Amino acid sequence: MGTEKNRDIRLKSRPVGLPTRSDFELVETDIPSPGLGQVLVRNLFMSVDPYMRGRMMDRKSYVPPFQIGEVLQGGAVGKVVASNNGPFQVGDTVMSFSGWREWYVSDGSDMMQKVDATVAPIQSYLGALGMPGLTAYVGLTRIGELKDEERVFVSAASGAVGAIACQIAKNKGCRVVGSAGSDEKCAYLTDELHIDQAINYRTCGNLSLALSDVMQSGIDVYFDNVGGGHLTAALDNMRQFGRIVACGMIENYNATEPPKGPHNLMNIVGQSLTMRGFIVSNHYDLMERFRQDMSAWIAAGKMTWRETVYDGIEHAPDALIALFHGLNFGKMLVKLGEA
Amino acid sequence: MGTEKNRDIRLKSRPVGLPTRSDFELVETDIPSPGLGQVLVRNLFMSVDPYMRGRMMDRKSYVPPFQIGEVLQGGAVGKVVASNNGPFQVGDTVMSFSGWREWYVSDGSDMMQKVDATVAPIQSYLGALGMPGLTAYVGLTRIGELKDEERVFVSAASGAVGAIACQIAKNKGCRVVGSAGSDEKCAYLTDELHIDQAINYRTCGNLSLALSDVMQSGIDVYFDNVGGGHLTAALDNMRQFGRIVACGMIENYNATEPPKGPHNLMNIVGQSLTMRGFIVSNHYDLMERFRQDMSAWIAAGKMTWRETVYDGIEHAPDALIALFHGLNFGKMLVKLGEA
Repeated sequence: MGTEKNRDIRLKSRPVGLPTRSDFELVETDIPSPGLGQVLVRNLFMSVDPYMRGRMMDRKSYVPPFQIGEVLQGGAVGKVVASNNGPFQVGDTVMSFSGWREWYVSDGSDMMQKVDATVAPIQSYLGALGMPGLTAYVGLTRIGELKDEERVFVSAASGAVGAIACQIAKNKGCRVVGSAGSDEKCAYLTDELHIDQAINYRTCGNLSLALSDVMQSGIDVYFDNVGGGHLTAALDNMRQFGRIVACGMIENYNATEPPKGPHNLMNIVGQSLTMRGFIVSNHYDLMERFRQDMSAWIAAGKMTWRETVYDGIEHAPDALIALFHGLNFGKMLVKLGEA
Repeated sequence: MGTEKNRDIRLKSRPVGLPTRSDFELVETDIPSPGLGQVLVRNLFMSVDPYMRGRMMDRKSYVPPFQIGEVLQGGAVGKVVASNNGPFQVGDTVMSFSGWREWYVSDGSDMMQKVDATVAPIQSYLGALGMPGLTAYVGLTRIGELKDEERVFVSAASGAVGAIACQIAKNKGCRVVGSAGSDEKCAYLTDELHIDQAINYRTCGNLSLALSDVMQSGIDVYFDNVGGGHLTAALDNMRQFGRIVACGMIENYNATEPPKGPHNLMNIVGQSLTMRGFIVSNHYDLMERFRQDMSAWIAAGKMTWRETVYDGIEHAPDALIALFHGLNFGKMLVKLGEA
């Protein structure tokens, strides 16, 4: 390791509205030395996810907010470089929540876990085989109680979670409509993910009418990553006893004023709908079943995904900002080092 | 019956905003004669309920809209006066959806059913022992999955549904907070229904803060009859895995512009909430269990209610309008005749 240094990204100020580069600080430190029972890990990829924006606000939430001056956190995969901890060996690939830094030490008590690097590229554990994939799986199967051949609408359908949700629903024989923010993404949804219809929400005009055009018999399950106008449009088109999986509301994350709620929430009563939110970390009991199903789908050629990769930890804030402009195509990652 | 006439109320025009008397028409007709297999019923009480406002709009809904010029519909109890239908005998008390008229004939296929006039005053079958009671019961037990000793918030808590919901929750050992629109109603809630705290939403200032003052550990189940500001305030105070029973949104029923939705719907994700709507008519399978439980609670002195009674069918439109001004205290009824 010689004269090499560790670099991490810290929260410098709480963003107001869209985060800017000046809200973040790149700090150089020494590479830590693993103590007794610890391993030293070099991160190779880190994950950038919309939910991180929420943790930058100082408010009561299901996870504590990031603190000013502290290193940010998030999913990462890396390699064990030195080990004083028996179960972890040099060369092991590990997944952790110690992203936003190039190197770290761990005693393994922080949910760091070994992953099988032979199933798929290791960064897949931050996407299709990781939290976003599990989020899609939990959301559709447990929260949305999706049944075979139902009618499904997925927003942000080419994103890390949405693309997996689309394919899980297709693999269950559902009719699937997805929304995305460009014609290129829409073409990807129909041509490569083989969903039934894609709607470019930026150019379609009235989204509620666009939805009713392509889902004339209505929506059984709406997988909501967006909130706002997408939620309103879906509420207009839900079938009786339909379910809304409240996974995220990216449209609101950078709002500087209280966002408008849907004017048609009364449809929840009229159509006997269920809208249910969830946090994937409360559903890790499904992880093993998820990994089995996903591995089988991948092996059968029934699951594909895209990644947008920024190179170098110094670009991690740019990657996060780009996410809120919809500049990612699929899973947003930052490459932190070479295997 | 001699020269007596039948009177009914018809929809003259679709209300815009709050209904006015001129939206209704009182029409006099002959008392119908029961044909083969039919009974003639004289209505004694009819029900006036907030949901009726929705049926006055011309829109797709779970029940077809009322048509201009046609007699309105709604719950009623009456007495069989003549019968050509074996199972129904002269003197039987019957419940039906043939309200808004003084007399009607039926062959029994329209959900008309005999009720036991010895359990409670017959008009109770339009309130505690009828649809409003069943609505409270279904909402709390099936939709809200209420568990003993949970923390419950009920809006419009002195209304026909709310008052029953409060007492069911108290009978299950829950801590119950209710909201109402006058100090007199609030005193009734604590002194006669024995709920733990009542909030006068008109005078409490910020409802969200008022709620957090009296429910410091948060809400497990919110029984929502109001929507609007009540829903927003409840969303601010829900506990993780809490349930919102979407029963009605009376605050929106007379809106002439699209109502504002709650700005904090993202709490559904953050707190893993479930918001579920329902229509009581999809849950009649619980009717028998409900009647057993209610009869037992009534017999044990654990269930009480109030009624506001307008006298004479000509005042039925006034009763409906008064409901939207909160002028009822408990169940709103119109007396149509003497037993």
